[in-house]
Amino acid sequence: MNYQFSDRMAAMQPSLVREILKATANPAIIPFAAGNPAPDAFPVEEVRRITAGILQENPIGALQYSVTEGYPALREKVKEMLENHYGIPTKDNDLIIISGAQQGADLATKALVNEGDTVLCEDPSFVGVLNCFRSYHCNLVGVEMESDGINLEKLEKAMQEQPNVKLLYLIPNFQNPTGITTSEAKRREVLRLAKKYNVMILEDNPYGDLRYSGTPLPSIKSFDDAGQVIYIGSFSKILAPGIRVGFVLAPKPIIEKMTVGKQCADVHTPILVQMIAERFLSTCDLAAHIEKIRSLYRGKLSLMLDGIQAEFAPSIAYTRPEGGMFLWCTLPKGADMIDFCNRGIAEKVAVVPGVAFLAKETDPCRSFRMNFTTPTDDGIVEGIKRLGKLTRELF
Amino acid sequence: MNYQFSDRMAAMQPSLVREILKATANPAIIPFAAGNPAPDAFPVEEVRRITAGILQENPIGALQYSVTEGYPALREKVKEMLENHYGIPTKDNDLIIISGAQQGADLATKALVNEGDTVLCEDPSFVGVLNCFRSYHCNLVGVEMESDGINLEKLEKAMQEQPNVKLLYLIPNFQNPTGITTSEAKRREVLRLAKKYNVMILEDNPYGDLRYSGTPLPSIKSFDDAGQVIYIGSFSKILAPGIRVGFVLAPKPIIEKMTVGKQCADVHTPILVQMIAERFLSTCDLAAHIEKIRSLYRGKLSLMLDGIQAEFAPSIAYTRPEGGMFLWCTLPKGADMIDFCNRGIAEKVAVVPGVAFLAKETDPCRSFRMNFTTPTDDGIVEGIKRLGKLTRELF
Repeated sequence: MNYQFSDRMAAMQPSLVREILKATANPAIIPFAAGNPAPDAFPVEEVRRITAGILQENPIGALQYSVTEGYPALREKVKEMLENHYGIPTKDNDLIIISGAQQGADLATKALVNEGDTVLCEDPSFVGVLNCFRSYHCNLVGVEMESDGINLEKLEKAMQEQPNVKLLYLIPNFQNPTGITTSEAKRREVLRLAKKYNVMILEDNPYGDLRYSGTPLPSIKSFDDAGQVIYIGSFSKILAPGIRVGFVLAPKPIIEKMTVGKQCADVHTPILVQMIAERFLSTCDLAAHIEKIRSLYRGKLSLMLDGIQAEFAPSIAYTRPEGGMFLWCTLPKGADMIDFCNRGIAEKVAVVPGVAFLAKETDPCRSFRMNFTTPTDDGIVEGIKRLGKLTRELF
Repeated sequence: MNYQFSDRMAAMQPSLVREILKATANPAIIPFAAGNPAPDAFPVEEVRRITAGILQENPIGALQYSVTEGYPALREKVKEMLENHYGIPTKDNDLIIISGAQQGADLATKALVNEGDTVLCEDPSFVGVLNCFRSYHCNLVGVEMESDGINLEKLEKAMQEQPNVKLLYLIPNFQNPTGITTSEAKRREVLRLAKKYNVMILEDNPYGDLRYSGTPLPSIKSFDDAGQVIYIGSFSKILAPGIRVGFVLAPKPIIEKMTVGKQCADVHTPILVQMIAERFLSTCDLAAHIEKIRSLYRGKLSLMLDGIQAEFAPSIAYTRPEGGMFLWCTLPKGADMIDFCNRGIAEKVAVVPGVAFLAKETDPCRSFRMNFTTPTDDGIVEGIKRLGKLTRELF
C-alpha cells in the first residue's frame, strides 16, 4: 500500500539530534552530543525507598486509572514549590501534571495554534519543541538570539509582520542549545511586547535550578499580570528524566483546554511516577539534592570551559553559561561546521551541528552544541583536547 | 486576556463520561458508569517484587532518558506475545510502545488525517477516542452497529460518499460501549472494503483477553495481507491501567511516522513502567493471571445479566456480551433516556447516557452503558434491583 500521510506530518523526519545520538551510542565515543543528566545526579536510594513505600501503602491507587489533571497531592506540592521556591504566584492560574515538559508544548500548541498560524521562537532553540510546533503545520519563525536573550527589535517586527502570531517560545534560563540566560530587563520587555501584540508566551524552564554562578532571575511568569504566560516545568533535571513528569501553570481557561487535549492524548500521566515525584518533594530534602547536582555540574562546566580556553584555537567563539547543561561554540567565518562535526566523530567526539536547532534548518550556521553533564570528567578533558587539536589544525 | 483557541479545540469540552464520573465519585453511588478494572484484578504482589528488582538491578536504566520507540526488551516480548498468543504475524510491520492505547489513536490520526478528512467509526463507540478524532478537526462519521458488528452496506456507502476517508476505527472484541463482538465474516469483509477504498483500519483491542464464553476470533490484523491495519493493544486490562503502557503494531512506514509524532508529543513513555510491563511478561504466568481476571469478571457479568433478566421490565433490550467490561441497554420507543439516567442517580446508581458514545452527540438515543467490572458483587445485585424497579415503574 502506498501510504498517504497528513500534510502536517508528511515532511517530518526524525530529529537530527536523535539520529546523531543513535550513531554515537557507541561507548567509545565521547558524548558531548547528548542531553542527559549525569547518572550520579539521580537520587537512586530515595527512589527505591519511596517506590517501595507507595506500593506497600497504596498499591491500588498507584495502579488504577486516575484523573487527567494529575495526582492531586502532587499538584498541590508543585504549586507550593512554585510559590515558595520560585516566587511565582499561582492565583488566577491552574496547574496540571503532564508527561514531561515536551507534552506541555504539544498541548499548548494544540490548544492555541491553527495550521498556518505563526509560532515565534528564539533562533536557535530546542529542537524537540521546534519539531512539536512543526507537527502542527504552523509558520515557525526564529528570532535572533543575543548574549542577553532574544533580539527585541526583530521580535517586535516579527509580531507585527508575521501572520496570526499566536505563541512565543522562550527558554529564559541557560537556554538549550546556547546556554544563554535572558536578562531581567529583556524578560520584562518581552512580556510587554506579548501584551501589546496579544501573543501568548510559552516559558519553558527545565534548567532553572541548575545555576552554578551568578544570581537567579525572576521568571517571566512571576510578573505575568495579564494571564499571558504558560509556564512549563519538569522533574527531568531535578529528579530523573525517565519518569517523564512535568507540569504546566497557566491561566485557568488555557489549562481547561489543555486538559481536554491531554484527555485525548494519553488520558493521564502514569500515576506511579506522579506519586514518586510527590513523595520526593514531600519526604526528601530537595534543596540539598539540587545543591548536590549543582556542585557536580559546576565542576564539569568549569572543566569544559577551562579546557576550551586552553585547547581551542582563539578564533573559536563560545558562550560561558551560568548554568544548565549546554554551551554553544561558533567557528570562524568561512568554516565548514558540518565538516568539523564529522571530523569530531572521526576522532570519537560527538557534538551536535547547530543547524539542528534553527527554525529554518537550511539557514547558514557555523555553530555546534556541546553538553557537559553526560560525559565523565576524564571524557571532558580528553574530548576537548581532541576537538582543540582539530580547531588548531583547521582555524 | 480574551483567549482565542485553535479551531480544532475551540468547541471541545471535557467528555460527558468524565463529568459523570466526577459527579459519581461519591462512594455511596453504585458505579455502573465507570470503566475501571476491579482492584482485585491487579497483580499487586508481582508489581511490588518486579519494581523492587528493577530499582535494585538497573536503577539508572529506569531513570535515564530512553528511546522514543520504547524499551527494546518490552518491544520484543510484545512481538512474541502477538505472534504466539494472538496469532498475529509481525513480519513487514514494526511495533512501538505508547503511553496507553489512547496515544495510539492520537498518533495514528496525527500521521494520517488532515483537518476536514473523514474518520469512520462504529456508532456508538468509545468516547475517549472519538474525542481524540474531534481534536484533529476531522469529519467524524458514525456507521450503525448491528449485533455482529458494523453495518457493511452503510460502511461501504460512507466510504464512497464521505470526503477523503482516511481511517476506520473499530473495536472488534466486546466493543465499548455495546459489548458487541464483530463476527469473523464481518472482520474479513471490513478489511476487503478498506482495501477497495484505500482506507486504513485502526483496530483497537483493549479487551481481547477478557473473554468469558464462546470462541476467540482472529483479529483483523491477523489477516492483513496489504498493510492496511494499525493494531493497538494495551496492558491496562491485563496488568493495570495506571501504568499507561500500550503498544501499536503497524506497517513500517506508518510506525516511522507515528514515532516522529511521539517524539514531538512526549519523547518516550516512562521507562520504569515499561520495565514493569516487560518483567511482568517475562517472569509472571500471564495465562494464569488472565484466567484469574476472567474468572472474576465472568462471575460479575453473570450476576448482572441474571439480575437484568429477573428485575428489568421485559421491554428493555440489552446486549449479552461474551467478554469485556460493558453491556448496553436500550429503553423502549418513546422513553426519555436522560430522564432515566437522572432517576438512576437519584437512586444512587450511575450509568452512562448513550449519547456520550455517538459520533453525533445530538442524534436520538434511548440506550445507556453499564459496567460490571468496577462494582462489587453486592453492588451489582443492589444496583440492578434499583434500576429494575425504575424500569418496571416507567416502562
